[in-house]
Amino acid sequence: MSAGVRDAAAGLACPRPVSGYAHIVLGHGGGGRLTQRLVDDVFARAFANPALAPLHDGAVLRVGAGRIAISTDTFVVTPRWFPGGDLGSLAVHGTVNDLAMCGARPIALTAGFVLEEGLALDELERLVDSMAAAARDAGVPVVTGDTKVVDRGRGDGVFVNTTGVGVVPDGITIAPARAAPGDVVLVSGTLGDHGIAVLSVRDGMGFESAVRSDSAALHGMVGALLAALGGDVHVLRDPTRGGAASALNEIARSAAAGVAIDEASLPVAAPVQAACELLGLDPLYVANEGKLLAFVPAARADEALAVLRAHPLGRAAARIGHVVADHPGRVVLRSRIGGRRIVDLLSGEQLPRIC
Amino acid sequence: MSAGVRDAAAGLACPRPVSGYAHIVLGHGGGGRLTQRLVDDVFARAFANPALAPLHDGAVLRVGAGRIAISTDTFVVTPRWFPGGDLGSLAVHGTVNDLAMCGARPIALTAGFVLEEGLALDELERLVDSMAAAARDAGVPVVTGDTKVVDRGRGDGVFVNTTGVGVVPDGITIAPARAAPGDVVLVSGTLGDHGIAVLSVRDGMGFESAVRSDSAALHGMVGALLAALGGDVHVLRDPTRGGAASALNEIARSAAAGVAIDEASLPVAAPVQAACELLGLDPLYVANEGKLLAFVPAARADEALAVLRAHPLGRAAARIGHVVADHPGRVVLRSRIGGRRIVDLLSGEQLPRIC
Repeated sequence: MSAGVRDAAAGLACPRPVSGYAHIVLGHGGGGRLTQRLVDDVFARAFANPALAPLHDGAVLRVGAGRIAISTDTFVVTPRWFPGGDLGSLAVHGTVNDLAMCGARPIALTAGFVLEEGLALDELERLVDSMAAAARDAGVPVVTGDTKVVDRGRGDGVFVNTTGVGVVPDGITIAPARAAPGDVVLVSGTLGDHGIAVLSVRDGMGFESAVRSDSAALHGMVGALLAALGGDVHVLRDPTRGGAASALNEIARSAAAGVAIDEASLPVAAPVQAACELLGLDPLYVANEGKLLAFVPAARADEALAVLRAHPLGRAAARIGHVVADHPGRVVLRSRIGGRRIVDLLSGEQLPRIC
Repeated sequence: MSAGVRDAAAGLACPRPVSGYAHIVLGHGGGGRLTQRLVDDVFARAFANPALAPLHDGAVLRVGAGRIAISTDTFVVTPRWFPGGDLGSLAVHGTVNDLAMCGARPIALTAGFVLEEGLALDELERLVDSMAAAARDAGVPVVTGDTKVVDRGRGDGVFVNTTGVGVVPDGITIAPARAAPGDVVLVSGTLGDHGIAVLSVRDGMGFESAVRSDSAALHGMVGALLAALGGDVHVLRDPTRGGAASALNEIARSAAAGVAIDEASLPVAAPVQAACELLGLDPLYVANEGKLLAFVPAARADEALAVLRAHPLGRAAARIGHVVADHPGRVVLRSRIGGRRIVDLLSGEQLPRIC
């Protein structure tokens, strides 16, 4: 650990208090430290089992001679319609991507709706049509579903759970714990587009912006990467809620390794950067819905970057850092002016209901 | 078709209007005709694909050399704690049972939570503990999950989606369309316990009752039935929301066959019957969460009944009717006094948020 990192760590060594909550607060859903504590203290403790242990985007199970991946996600984004996407298409992309991040080829989705009394049927139809179109485009059918209705004032229009199943090819093991010193960290494109697009149209917060959500299904790009690098792809993660900072922290923690990031290398579109400055946000913490982080051995990083850049969704892919043996469990950023700071999990929530 | 049935059909031939809704109403979640119309007109139309077509409790997909079943369900029951169960255990039993009704051996569950800001963490922990205990008792691990938080007044404490995956044994094909004239209809026990137990403690409706929910995991009993009868089990269905009447209607419609039921043979516990009379409910339409309907060939009905009765959850199993070539798509009940009436889907909802 360098002196600079040690200083940075010392300066932030005292985490803000997160215990002592008696009730759920919005921060428990923010993807930061409160979410992690809730998962650790309530869910992981109660449901402890070998498949759950990796705390990845999904679980991988052996079925017969093969392996399947399962992932679940509930979508509560507000507003439901935003530049570049909507709740329906997002619900497809989000779960398809979680399966892809397990290295799986998605084969089926389920859809569970919680509808609030009073929702316009016309809007429901448009959301379902968007969802169906996204599923068709991704080539992943919605095979079964469920609909519940709750009384007016006990829901918020529509919540959608999508759960997906995929098949993991032989020889592929993608897991956050596989991040190893020497691995290079790649990102498939610009950061923060989804979060800024949603905020730009949010009640009480709307602002002029040309930013569109990056919401997209990434399994095609992952397929190309796995075809080229096979078992040399160590970790994949889509940095959604909590942004790249939270995803990298979770990986560093799972692997008990350090992650070093170069600020100058982070791809951020100019309008996203401008909006972040206006709102006091760090793009590293802003949600993405069509980007992935990939950890690959240094010897294959150029090849992996070329594969990503050759895909329509990866044209702005970049090398943003690497895994180190120092500061295990920590993400450290080298700033443009050469200083270092710890990129921590946020204590509470930055952007509620962003997905 | 007998004259009696023809008369009954004529008397009820004019369904109440269900089209023309511009907004979601509670009845869209009631499990009756409005739910069916919503599924047909909005979801099935948009998501049309071969796996979705059977409109069963779950979907069966080929994976490698085998088949898996997938089922999803969101639980919004109110209140969350009721005699004989709670939202957490119900969320496990409900999805385990949907898989079992596909003939599948459940292997994994996912859990997606929508938490409302302000929910007591203590209650969340108790619900999650109950869920975990139910999963352990059923031998089906929760392998991955998701948590979202919505603002106060935009949810209702906790909603839980559980989605399950199971393995379908070779030689087993359970599907509503397999109901065939000559099949005997069995039920594994008394009807209406769950719905009455929940209503007995519902705000503004509570009444004195000794009824406990029948909430239970049925895959063990299904396993015993399949071990004995194998491919001769044609249809399995757990009559949850909308009760046995709705389940039988869906099966009759899928199979384009008639179902004839004997009122005198329906097992209903005395306190449930009493509560139904008090509330003006028909136990045939009241939800169950630990019962199944089984359709088997007449030649094997006695054997199937013996298997059900030998299981702790099936002691009150009974033969309640049979499949006929007459009145295809219709369920007809022969009353205690010998008359016949059509058992139709309810137009709207009878018991909102019962599961």
